[in-house]
Amino acid sequence: MRDTYGDGENRAHALLAETGKALRLPVRTDVAANTYATWAGADRTLPRVLMGSHLDSVPHGGNFDGAAGVVAGLVVIEALRALGYSPRRDIEVMGIRAEESIWFQVSYIGSRAALGSLPATALQSPRIDTGRPLRMHMADCGADPAAVASGAHELSAAALDCFLEVHIEQAPALVESKLPVAVCTGIPGNFRYPQARINGRHDHVGTPLRFRRDAAMAGAEIAMAVDVAWRKREAAGIPMAATFGRFHTDASMHGLTIVPGAFSFSLDVRAYDEAILAAFEAEFLAMVRDVGARRHVEIDLGPRAEAPVGHVDPAIRARLHGHAKQLNVPVMDLGSPASHDAAAFCAAGVPTAMLFVRNENGSHNPLEHMEIADFLDACSILACLVAERAV
Amino acid sequence: MRDTYGDGENRAHALLAETGKALRLPVRTDVAANTYATWAGADRTLPRVLMGSHLDSVPHGGNFDGAAGVVAGLVVIEALRALGYSPRRDIEVMGIRAEESIWFQVSYIGSRAALGSLPATALQSPRIDTGRPLRMHMADCGADPAAVASGAHELSAAALDCFLEVHIEQAPALVESKLPVAVCTGIPGNFRYPQARINGRHDHVGTPLRFRRDAAMAGAEIAMAVDVAWRKREAAGIPMAATFGRFHTDASMHGLTIVPGAFSFSLDVRAYDEAILAAFEAEFLAMVRDVGARRHVEIDLGPRAEAPVGHVDPAIRARLHGHAKQLNVPVMDLGSPASHDAAAFCAAGVPTAMLFVRNENGSHNPLEHMEIADFLDACSILACLVAERAV
Repeated sequence: MRDTYGDGENRAHALLAETGKALRLPVRTDVAANTYATWAGADRTLPRVLMGSHLDSVPHGGNFDGAAGVVAGLVVIEALRALGYSPRRDIEVMGIRAEESIWFQVSYIGSRAALGSLPATALQSPRIDTGRPLRMHMADCGADPAAVASGAHELSAAALDCFLEVHIEQAPALVESKLPVAVCTGIPGNFRYPQARINGRHDHVGTPLRFRRDAAMAGAEIAMAVDVAWRKREAAGIPMAATFGRFHTDASMHGLTIVPGAFSFSLDVRAYDEAILAAFEAEFLAMVRDVGARRHVEIDLGPRAEAPVGHVDPAIRARLHGHAKQLNVPVMDLGSPASHDAAAFCAAGVPTAMLFVRNENGSHNPLEHMEIADFLDACSILACLVAERAV
Repeated sequence: MRDTYGDGENRAHALLAETGKALRLPVRTDVAANTYATWAGADRTLPRVLMGSHLDSVPHGGNFDGAAGVVAGLVVIEALRALGYSPRRDIEVMGIRAEESIWFQVSYIGSRAALGSLPATALQSPRIDTGRPLRMHMADCGADPAAVASGAHELSAAALDCFLEVHIEQAPALVESKLPVAVCTGIPGNFRYPQARINGRHDHVGTPLRFRRDAAMAGAEIAMAVDVAWRKREAAGIPMAATFGRFHTDASMHGLTIVPGAFSFSLDVRAYDEAILAAFEAEFLAMVRDVGARRHVEIDLGPRAEAPVGHVDPAIRARLHGHAKQLNVPVMDLGSPASHDAAAFCAAGVPTAMLFVRNENGSHNPLEHMEIADFLDACSILACLVAERAV
């Protein structure tokens, strides 16, 4: 476990620093304790090529989610160096802090802090297990939360040529297609209702239908309506996903012989096109109004959150395909199932691209698996692109 | 709170004993600590008229659920005595123990023990809060659980002329109809799956539709299919109810960004006709198989429980209507929303009937409410019937 701003993540950053030094790459950290290992270019004023990913994991995460993208950066530098290249511009590997939102309920903490786009309020977020605020955990890890709060940051779009992230795929599309690597077509934006609640009335189990205000059945009807709306898009070839992650009656009140008067759910809807998201949300809100009125329940959707769509750079994407073809590595296009630090770079206006590596057993579990041959295929494509841009 | 085989229920039984003695009615208890107050008839060998209900309540229950039926019996005896009647046969009021299944997850404990139909295994059931077995709580209250286990019992169909139970209505049908009293047409039988579980796979929130094994969506689809099947019966005028009381993702695993891999639910389906129940269950089981196969989840319904339909005595029911008409009390027919001790008497072959009293605020909550005028209407009808059969 590589816990965000905790001992596990610290060990991973220490290992990156140690490895960077062993490879004779200067290592530095920034105000958010992100780690950078740099292969200096001939002209240090040129915008630099940045590769990397996050080094934290979810509590029962495996070895590859995030960390593989940092190792890929080091492999690319070593490969180019072994081939005798010297870079025109800096080529840098970034070990990013705190991508996994499970710990502080905030996403992209490290990358957004590095880019100056992390809201200062995020520093107060309590870690879900310790209850201590993010800023205290950051300080424990050598970060400077006061500097982060004041807006100090390491990276800017002007100083970056591009950001390139290798990541395991977090779904089995590559396994299904029997391909080692995919080129990312976009990172989904989302809208979220993390704490929606339905209030009806707890009634005796024998209460006739016309008297009921059953909160759970209202939840079930909304979920099925969302399911149908998703399947309609799916049939039309529109990639998206809708997930009711929490979906439950109230454990302090529910029981075999009680009509549920309270129901809670969370909803995450993600897609690669802002217009698709907006239309889906409008449809969802109409369903909620309809179900609430018909079933005589009050539906409080609670706070709403959203993330913008991450549009990858079409030119880099085309070149990744070109290099894959030249290397004879079969690749496919793939919309990222998940959110990634790359989205924070897209949002900051940095030309960004991603490669996905085939992964057998899903992510966010200890069994996530990557064949080293597949990983090296991704590294080869990445190395060609980096050589093209930086040497 | 009148907790089953606990201090609260004991206080209610002590009050019944005290009141019976004050009314010069001999009071006795049986091996299950049920309390009886008897107005002796001229011929003590004749089958006796038994009135009563339970004296326990759910944890946040009100004053009337159960207890009103015991008071009704005392009121009837006092009224008939005040009118100068003397009974041919014994007229008896029974304060029944342990009707509420919430405490020991077993229903009709007191009445079934009195009738000799309580399975001995029930005596081992732990009370939900203390964890101590039923037999220990019974012994604390002066019952003789060893005698209950050996089959000793107080009541038999041959020794009873009839069983008559007054109870508040546990739904607002009488309030809706603006009527004080209803004559029970039947006590619902049920089938129950108290601990059903759906096992799918926990996946990343971005997992495409075709790879998902979402346990919560499977639960939602089953619930909506049951809802539709119920509404079809409702439209056809078939009274029944279906309730998913517990309906929830796994609190130790669920989260905003995780496709739920586990889902739990309880189901109670009740109706007044065995054939309706059997057909509904067959339809439910077919839905479960269909949803399980289509959504790639395993559905383990867990243990199944059932209760037979309680068929009230048609002759007594007709006479209750006759007496109500003569008394000018407007009444309606009503299928009992809930289960009652009366069902145990039906099952034992005792001619059984029930009257429901209008109740404003639902039952199983502290606000349950009964107008004394409505209650006395029910007592008047009951007194006429008892006089007809016993004096």
